[in-house]
Amino acid sequence: MRTTLLSLALLLLIADLPAWAQTTRPAVEDFKPSSLNQGGKQYPQINSEGRARFRIMAPQAQSVKSSFSGPTQITKGDDGAWIITTRPLDEGFHYYTLNIDGADVPDPGTLFFYGAGRWGSAIEVPAKDQDFYQLKDVPHGQLRQDLYFSKSTNAVRRCFVYTPPDYEKDPSKRYPVLYLQHGAGEDETGWGNQGHAGLIIDNLLAEGKCKPFIIVMDNGGGIGGGARRGGPGRGAANRGTGQPGGAAGPGAGGPPRRGAAGRGGFAFNFNAFEHILIDELIPHIDSTYRTIADQPHRAMAGLSMGGMQTRTISLAHLDTFSQIGIFSGGSIAPSDVSDMTAYRQKVKLVFVSYGSREVDPANRRRGGPFGADPKANTDALKEAGINTHYYISPQTAHEWQSWRRSLHEFAPLLFQE
Amino acid sequence: MRTTLLSLALLLLIADLPAWAQTTRPAVEDFKPSSLNQGGKQYPQINSEGRARFRIMAPQAQSVKSSFSGPTQITKGDDGAWIITTRPLDEGFHYYTLNIDGADVPDPGTLFFYGAGRWGSAIEVPAKDQDFYQLKDVPHGQLRQDLYFSKSTNAVRRCFVYTPPDYEKDPSKRYPVLYLQHGAGEDETGWGNQGHAGLIIDNLLAEGKCKPFIIVMDNGGGIGGGARRGGPGRGAANRGTGQPGGAAGPGAGGPPRRGAAGRGGFAFNFNAFEHILIDELIPHIDSTYRTIADQPHRAMAGLSMGGMQTRTISLAHLDTFSQIGIFSGGSIAPSDVSDMTAYRQKVKLVFVSYGSREVDPANRRRGGPFGADPKANTDALKEAGINTHYYISPQTAHEWQSWRRSLHEFAPLLFQE
Repeated sequence: MRTTLLSLALLLLIADLPAWAQTTRPAVEDFKPSSLNQGGKQYPQINSEGRARFRIMAPQAQSVKSSFSGPTQITKGDDGAWIITTRPLDEGFHYYTLNIDGADVPDPGTLFFYGAGRWGSAIEVPAKDQDFYQLKDVPHGQLRQDLYFSKSTNAVRRCFVYTPPDYEKDPSKRYPVLYLQHGAGEDETGWGNQGHAGLIIDNLLAEGKCKPFIIVMDNGGGIGGGARRGGPGRGAANRGTGQPGGAAGPGAGGPPRRGAAGRGGFAFNFNAFEHILIDELIPHIDSTYRTIADQPHRAMAGLSMGGMQTRTISLAHLDTFSQIGIFSGGSIAPSDVSDMTAYRQKVKLVFVSYGSREVDPANRRRGGPFGADPKANTDALKEAGINTHYYISPQTAHEWQSWRRSLHEFAPLLFQE
Repeated sequence: MRTTLLSLALLLLIADLPAWAQTTRPAVEDFKPSSLNQGGKQYPQINSEGRARFRIMAPQAQSVKSSFSGPTQITKGDDGAWIITTRPLDEGFHYYTLNIDGADVPDPGTLFFYGAGRWGSAIEVPAKDQDFYQLKDVPHGQLRQDLYFSKSTNAVRRCFVYTPPDYEKDPSKRYPVLYLQHGAGEDETGWGNQGHAGLIIDNLLAEGKCKPFIIVMDNGGGIGGGARRGGPGRGAANRGTGQPGGAAGPGAGGPPRRGAAGRGGFAFNFNAFEHILIDELIPHIDSTYRTIADQPHRAMAGLSMGGMQTRTISLAHLDTFSQIGIFSGGSIAPSDVSDMTAYRQKVKLVFVSYGSREVDPANRRRGGPFGADPKANTDALKEAGINTHYYISPQTAHEWQSWRRSLHEFAPLLFQE
């Protein structure tokens, strides 16, 4: 099961080929090093068109490729350096691998991120709106690696906890909590690392645009996710990434695919994670941090598979979560709610978002909204009297730039009462 | 300068070839996956002799090598999989790269660590004494990424802070602080990641063998070190490693090489870091955490270049640090102390350690104690009335297993008054 899903994930990753990018015109020669490069590394680079350029010394190699599809220029210099230039890419974060004579390997020029069930390279295309997740001289929260024992799995698990900048200032102040989940093939490191969750909230708080709250990021399972439980055993706190391929699992689906999820390997992960979250993680967090430990001050959100988990778990635990965010992971229709009166009384916010390329039929790419129209569902839920919000990330697909923007739109709506 | 040091570091890394390991007998076929592998990855593996075995699919490759020197067996299977088996390695942590047709790349099977100024692969040889840094079901401290603004560098810097398990329990309790430094070519991620600093202290505390204290790990500069300052800008919290090659810089040297350090690129790093530590980092830590902010409750230690920095900075700031640990980074002789009366009065502990292969002339490997005999220096300092300790890590060289053991020996001696 896991291998199949992983293959599917990788397949969709390399299958990512938008028609609009079918260009063969020469690249604009204004390439600059990617912001995700290792210190001092000049490659990979990105130009003003969003094209990526890779360079690697491989004198004896017969073939060097990247996992990016579409029109690509590949040259080998007399010095043995291979230069690969891709088509224009979407703004934001993209995961990739190099292939040298048949060997899939990370690009030694980049930092490494976790996604598609593996650690690997990534490149960042500067976005017009990147200011909201930049590191600035503002008060910063802390990102904490928290190890706790889980009875149900008889293992020490790792979660990451963001505490807001003023958390250490007043030892009597208590905070609401957002439980924020990654997608399939990703893990508890994704949101804090390439998701820039901490920087996004630091910047919003500095502008007075959101309330201070704690964010808890645990491992929701899925492709390769379970394996991360071994992480702490190595004392490692490597931080990883998700990437579009990671969303290929049934977990990414909305209503029509829930059956598949229910039958597949994700069923175990879903049930196991629901139990861990409700019966182990939340009690651990409420007993360790200065939380406001009640339903009105507890939110859950997630991307792709994590959105699907948020959807399922929040519908089943009305007394646990009052505010819900589903990013590229389906939506909630009135027909999904068993008791609308209770739902109206207990659920204070339902936020649904997608990348524009997921929902625009004229410009559809990998993924899509998965079944019922999320906009129609969200409108219907609003008509039923629920405080709903619907957001579309412009010109992005099932990828991190959509999810960074979703968190940026979602956070200011949280804990307003 | 930096490039030269980096080359030297890499040179010494691959030059690591002990005579005792010149064995050509066939490997014992009891290989198991390394504990540092990515989730679910079967390779690299280690056998009971400490031999590493790598496997990578590279059907079209003409040549695949690893950076480990010495007798190595390399075969290519009909399936296109290359299998590389090395000589026996020391117990503990080893950094390496694969080379595919001339391209130096990380092994996609492992987690990635920071050392020799780059992120790359590593393998762990199970040690007889590994229990002291294993993840156990004991109370765990938190490892926090802390971002703070540094005036002298006009940049947001990142440090990692370990808070002991009971830190969140009693908001009125205050703690002593250990400032713990990495080596050249490493960064602020090394001690928390492959150094297992948190797990070592968690386990000692669970056995009642040391006092609870805060550990602060910042970037001391050196090879590639400065570049890490860009890290937070990417919101990244990748955790990395040092490895033996990282110690090749002048910073690793004792007295005889301080001149070189003083003239080289390290001079800037040393002076810059001394200023950051004393005037920016310590005030930030004392204003953010519940520390006991005085000299009797402040210690500094470091490995290799970090030991050299500890030596220099602690000798110059008697009123700041009372307890000192130098791991594979030189030693302190009475002649290094300008005012022995003041030193006797203010310095409560001087701990010096090395890997046995660094100091045993009959079994010397890369590095060595650098100049004056550290044992003789330490004995002389003891005779001068200073509380000194000297520790030799058995059968290890200038590598992380020596430094994990050094912290394990050093921690119980800290903050006893």
